[in-house]
Amino acid sequence: MGLFSKPIKSLDDLFVHTLQDIYYAENQITKNLPTMIAKASNPELKAAFQQHLTETEEQVKRLEQVFEMHGQPVKGVTCQAMDGILAEAKEVISDCGDPQVCDAAMLSAAQAVEHYEITRYGSLISYAKQLGRDDCASVLQQTLTEEKATDKRLTGIAEQQVNQKAAA
Amino acid sequence: MGLFSKPIKSLDDLFVHTLQDIYYAENQITKNLPTMIAKASNPELKAAFQQHLTETEEQVKRLEQVFEMHGQPVKGVTCQAMDGILAEAKEVISDCGDPQVCDAAMLSAAQAVEHYEITRYGSLISYAKQLGRDDCASVLQQTLTEEKATDKRLTGIAEQQVNQKAAA
Repeated sequence: MGLFSKPIKSLDDLFVHTLQDIYYAENQITKNLPTMIAKASNPELKAAFQQHLTETEEQVKRLEQVFEMHGQPVKGVTCQAMDGILAEAKEVISDCGDPQVCDAAMLSAAQAVEHYEITRYGSLISYAKQLGRDDCASVLQQTLTEEKATDKRLTGIAEQQVNQKAAA
Repeated sequence: MGLFSKPIKSLDDLFVHTLQDIYYAENQITKNLPTMIAKASNPELKAAFQQHLTETEEQVKRLEQVFEMHGQPVKGVTCQAMDGILAEAKEVISDCGDPQVCDAAMLSAAQAVEHYEITRYGSLISYAKQLGRDDCASVLQQTLTEEKATDKRLTGIAEQQVNQKAAA
C-alpha cells in the first residue's frame, strides 16, 4: 500500500486502495519480466515467462476497466511488497553462477510474484462482492483464474525440469 | 534474499539461501503478530492470529532443525519481500479509521504473509527432494501443511465474517 494515500475509512476505500496497490504491482511486473525472459535458459520456462508478460499486459487493462467501472481514476500506489519481491529476485539472479540454478531461482521468484497476486486478487474479489460489485468481481476473477493457472504451470516446469537440471 | 550473501553456484546453495530467507521472514512474523493480535476486533480473527503466532514459533524451531540436519549454521538473511509485505501491512493498518475495516486489512495482510510462506516452502521442499534430502523435505512439509490450513481458515473468516462487517 502507498505512502501518503488517503485514510481508509470504509471497505470501499480498502477496495480502491488494494486496486491501486495491485495496479502498481502489475506494472512493475511488466517492467521486470523482459529481463527474466532474456535470462531464462530452459525453453519452457522462457515460454511461460513470455506468456505471463502477455497476460500481465491484459491484466493491467482489466484493472483499468475496473477503476472505470467503479468511477475511480486509474492510479497506482507504491507496493512495497512487490518492490521487495522483485528486488530479492534481481539480487538472487545476479548472485547465480550457473544458468540452471538461475532458472530455478527465477522460477521461485516468479511463483512468489504469482502468490502475491493470487492473495490480493482473492481479497479484491471478496471486497467487490461485499460491496455489491459483482461486475467488478467477475472481471477480477478472470485474472485470478489466469494467475492460478500460471502458478500451476510454473510448479510443473519446476518439478519436471528446472529443479532436476539445477540439481544435476 | 540477502545482501552480501555468498554466490549461489548450486541448487544446494539456493536451498540454503532460501532457508536463510524464510528463517529471517518467520522471525519477522513473530515480531509483528503481537500487534495484529492486540488490534484485531473480531474474536475469531484474534484467535486465528494467536494460533498463527504459536505455530510460527514452532516453524522457526523446525527451520533450525533443518539447518542442523543439513549441516549448516542457523542464520537469516534479510528478506526484502517479507519486509515489504509487513511494512505495507503496518501502513494500511495505521491508515484505517474503522475497526471493522482494519480487521479486513489485517486479514488481507496476513494472507499475503501466508502466500509468501506457501510459495517459499513449496520451493524448499522441491529443492530438498532434488538434493536427496527427503528427511528435510518431510520436516518442511509439516510447515507447508500448516500454512495452507491457516490460509484456508483466514479465507473462511474473511468471507463469513470480517469482510461482511467491514461492508456494513
